[in-house]
Amino acid sequence: MSATRVSPRTLPLLSPGRVALFLQGGGGPHRGGVGPRFRSLTSPPLSCSSSSPGRALSSLSTTRRGLPKEKMSENGMMSRAKVLTIDTMNPTVKKVEYAVRGPIVQRAVELERELSEGMKKPFAEVIKANIGDAHAMGQQPITFFRQVLALCSYPELLSDSTFPEDAKSRACRILNSCGGNSMGAYSASQGIESVRQDVARYIERRDGGVPCDPDNIYLTTGASDGIVTMLKLLVCGEGAMRAGVMISIPQYPLYSAALAELSAVQINYYLNEEKCWSLDISELQRALDEARLYCNPRALCIINPGNPTGQVQSRECIEDVIRFAAKERLFLMADEVYQDNVYAEGCQFHSFKKVLFEMGPEYSETVELASFHSTSKCYMGECGFRGGYMEIINMDDDVKAQLTKLLSVRLCPPVPGQALMDLVVNPPQPGEPSYEHFIKERTATLSALAEKAKLTEQVLNTVEGIRCNPVQGAMYSFPCITIPERAIQEAKELGQQPDMFYCMKMLEETGICLVPGSGFGQKEGTYHFRMTILPPKDKLKILLNNVKAFHQSFTQQYS
Amino acid sequence: MSATRVSPRTLPLLSPGRVALFLQGGGGPHRGGVGPRFRSLTSPPLSCSSSSPGRALSSLSTTRRGLPKEKMSENGMMSRAKVLTIDTMNPTVKKVEYAVRGPIVQRAVELERELSEGMKKPFAEVIKANIGDAHAMGQQPITFFRQVLALCSYPELLSDSTFPEDAKSRACRILNSCGGNSMGAYSASQGIESVRQDVARYIERRDGGVPCDPDNIYLTTGASDGIVTMLKLLVCGEGAMRAGVMISIPQYPLYSAALAELSAVQINYYLNEEKCWSLDISELQRALDEARLYCNPRALCIINPGNPTGQVQSRECIEDVIRFAAKERLFLMADEVYQDNVYAEGCQFHSFKKVLFEMGPEYSETVELASFHSTSKCYMGECGFRGGYMEIINMDDDVKAQLTKLLSVRLCPPVPGQALMDLVVNPPQPGEPSYEHFIKERTATLSALAEKAKLTEQVLNTVEGIRCNPVQGAMYSFPCITIPERAIQEAKELGQQPDMFYCMKMLEETGICLVPGSGFGQKEGTYHFRMTILPPKDKLKILLNNVKAFHQSFTQQYS
Repeated sequence: MSATRVSPRTLPLLSPGRVALFLQGGGGPHRGGVGPRFRSLTSPPLSCSSSSPGRALSSLSTTRRGLPKEKMSENGMMSRAKVLTIDTMNPTVKKVEYAVRGPIVQRAVELERELSEGMKKPFAEVIKANIGDAHAMGQQPITFFRQVLALCSYPELLSDSTFPEDAKSRACRILNSCGGNSMGAYSASQGIESVRQDVARYIERRDGGVPCDPDNIYLTTGASDGIVTMLKLLVCGEGAMRAGVMISIPQYPLYSAALAELSAVQINYYLNEEKCWSLDISELQRALDEARLYCNPRALCIINPGNPTGQVQSRECIEDVIRFAAKERLFLMADEVYQDNVYAEGCQFHSFKKVLFEMGPEYSETVELASFHSTSKCYMGECGFRGGYMEIINMDDDVKAQLTKLLSVRLCPPVPGQALMDLVVNPPQPGEPSYEHFIKERTATLSALAEKAKLTEQVLNTVEGIRCNPVQGAMYSFPCITIPERAIQEAKELGQQPDMFYCMKMLEETGICLVPGSGFGQKEGTYHFRMTILPPKDKLKILLNNVKAFHQSFTQQYS
Repeated sequence: MSATRVSPRTLPLLSPGRVALFLQGGGGPHRGGVGPRFRSLTSPPLSCSSSSPGRALSSLSTTRRGLPKEKMSENGMMSRAKVLTIDTMNPTVKKVEYAVRGPIVQRAVELERELSEGMKKPFAEVIKANIGDAHAMGQQPITFFRQVLALCSYPELLSDSTFPEDAKSRACRILNSCGGNSMGAYSASQGIESVRQDVARYIERRDGGVPCDPDNIYLTTGASDGIVTMLKLLVCGEGAMRAGVMISIPQYPLYSAALAELSAVQINYYLNEEKCWSLDISELQRALDEARLYCNPRALCIINPGNPTGQVQSRECIEDVIRFAAKERLFLMADEVYQDNVYAEGCQFHSFKKVLFEMGPEYSETVELASFHSTSKCYMGECGFRGGYMEIINMDDDVKAQLTKLLSVRLCPPVPGQALMDLVVNPPQPGEPSYEHFIKERTATLSALAEKAKLTEQVLNTVEGIRCNPVQGAMYSFPCITIPERAIQEAKELGQQPDMFYCMKMLEETGICLVPGSGFGQKEGTYHFRMTILPPKDKLKILLNNVKAFHQSFTQQYS
């Protein structure tokens, strides 16, 4: 999937004003900027990197013509040309795309504004089913977590008898590890030591006793921060020696965005939709062998449970992937942020770390692995706190020292997010006052998600022209949709991806905001959308029926 | 100042084991890694960038020799060579240095551990005067801020009668702007709209009515995040066309670190220590003219009030800087995180934005400016929440759209930090229940800081061989120290910067952790250290007297 695919093709659908507005994320007049914006979004694909001197020279020459250029500004007065323009800015940034918050979401925000201004629409509200934002969809926070965070924020509450003792003891432990007993102090750049110790114990419990060294734990600003940091360490080289990173297609677009910004080569391997989005080693081998001809493959990224595809990988598959990484000398990156979101019977989460260590020293002492987790998903869904951690296995000590140094520049991850991460890995224990209620809340959320996963699959599969794999885990369905030839033609005439055309129409007609499959990548000629299963059950039912109704009318309209 | 100056020269002072330990940030055995580590830390300076194909090829070839290499591992079994090594990692990351959390701080952490393990030292505690971490130094958080944060974290408290009404109304306003009324939901990538509105109103009040558009406000993860993001937009080009950014010497090393990572050219302009660290336009011109011969200067960074130098710039100086930036077509970056930390009589903070607009449309409609603020400094000192904002003026609309897109990849800044930023710009107002107490707390903190600034200057200037400019603002003294020739020789024999040698000795003998001037850059042949004025007054007195005593004995020892 080309990093520059989505936006440019969607632009012609909209008036320049609107283009400016939604690319801008709302607000402000943006006159006459469409030309350059088109240039920016149709800039050469990844292969032509920012490091091409020719390109750099030409794009820069405008700022090197000695005397400042003059131009007539909007209010008619003479003004200098801008120092920073679309032609003189960092070219790698222009290649970045992130469909989950792309044009369709900007349009959704605009529609919400129009609704709030009383504009008539064929729907009463915009439903943002584009992103895994649990609390925004009405999921309630875990009481215990928020009690501890309140205690840490305002320690005077420690003398408040209405707070349970276990919440107070957790708060004290966290505050005692903070400089000046305050979440307002910087922490160590790697994260608060006691939190890293709790994370290590959590991982050992999760992995049936496989040892975990707190020095291998790095607390992060959400999982994204850790993933980008690891990729940053891995990139190097130019031309045919440029670092390549293998990512699944469909993928979570953080990966393509980060690789575009880092001018690394994105190596696509395709998941098998017919086999419930399973991962075939033969496909990994094909992708790798082809990539070796034009880049230096260094890392293999796996998302398990899958985003956007929702599959849960078998232990066997993980073993095969580890053997493949060892044989081909690839650094393994395991995105395991959905490790507690497993719903399907017979499915179970296996961490790459655990499987690696069960495969014996030949692998456990050699294969380099980074595993990522977050406070944003699972049963807690605390996205806004930007908490997360990464565990790194078998990393070279000198590289580790460089990693620690690199992280020190941004001082530390947000301490409230670190505190929250600590609570996630160190929740109430049996016998503690908050245990019963915590289990009740967690179970309720997870079983509701399991129910909604099944419901989504069932309803979508009743629609002719929609085929949905079981949502075994994570928080999304990613069904394959049949788009009539006439609609495909109309989309092409608009320079749009057919599934973007489909999703934009759905948004305008129903207020439902989904992400087109083209934003994640998909097999040529297939079309999908990603939809979260997060809305409350009743709302989800209505949502699914509206999707069904839309798909039927859309199909009719274009048949 | 070369980004690679500090660490390598400090290494020989210490045993390999210790080197590994403190570069690592504590913990874990690190055998035999010293060779590569030396290679890494003495890697070529900025001018030899990662984009040199030759270098990339050679450093990569090790991973391209087809079959995995075998080596004997510690436990004697055969194991594969690492995929990611100091030789095959991202070369730009190796060039990054950040002295504020560099080797000396790692050694301080180690000393703390040794003390806690009961090891005998000539001091009872380590005092980390290296970093502006107010709460760690015992400064108390603002009650109102923490009350609102507790209410936002655990809204059940909204029915608690012990919380003041204005805290509750602020909490409700923040929660109403959060998805699902929860700080656990993602915010817009640019930041919560109502917070950006409050920031805009704050800036208008601060700048005497100069208008501020909330669409120009971007909430950030601390000021560092905003600064790095802006630099990221500005870099481009290769070789003689490589983007250059002007930074003051002495500087805050975030700038040199970010420029090293982005492979941009660091253009040094020197502040005038004799004139109380003032900024001379002639020096800006000299630095720029020289730089134009080998790079493409694009931006000028100013830190006001100064870090580490503590000067507060006059309105005239700011006008001159703006004229210079306009004439030379430089993007202005104003680091104004210490805007409320002004102590010296006759000194006043003038924002670049306000001065720019008072200079009339020729400047206010053309000069591109980004200004940065944070929740970490001033009277609140809430570093751990990583809150901040940037205001961008006259940015090209297409670039702004690219900025918004780039920010969307990391989803959003931490919401608790956004909430805190909102409170900083929208504190209790006269007549509100919390107003009196808020003012009392703020005034107490700021006047204590003013007192400590004066005390620091006074005591240090009583020491023969220490010359300290008035600490007009910010949170640090940056005195010039005379180091005896014999000490300079001994340092050189150890391959150390003389002031690093001095600070390391002070740390080992007194437990006081300072940052050597070489970590910020300084005029050749001059030596300094940075010391925060943040410790409580009594503690600061002892601290200053210990510094005095150390300097005297050090001078004696080496005279």
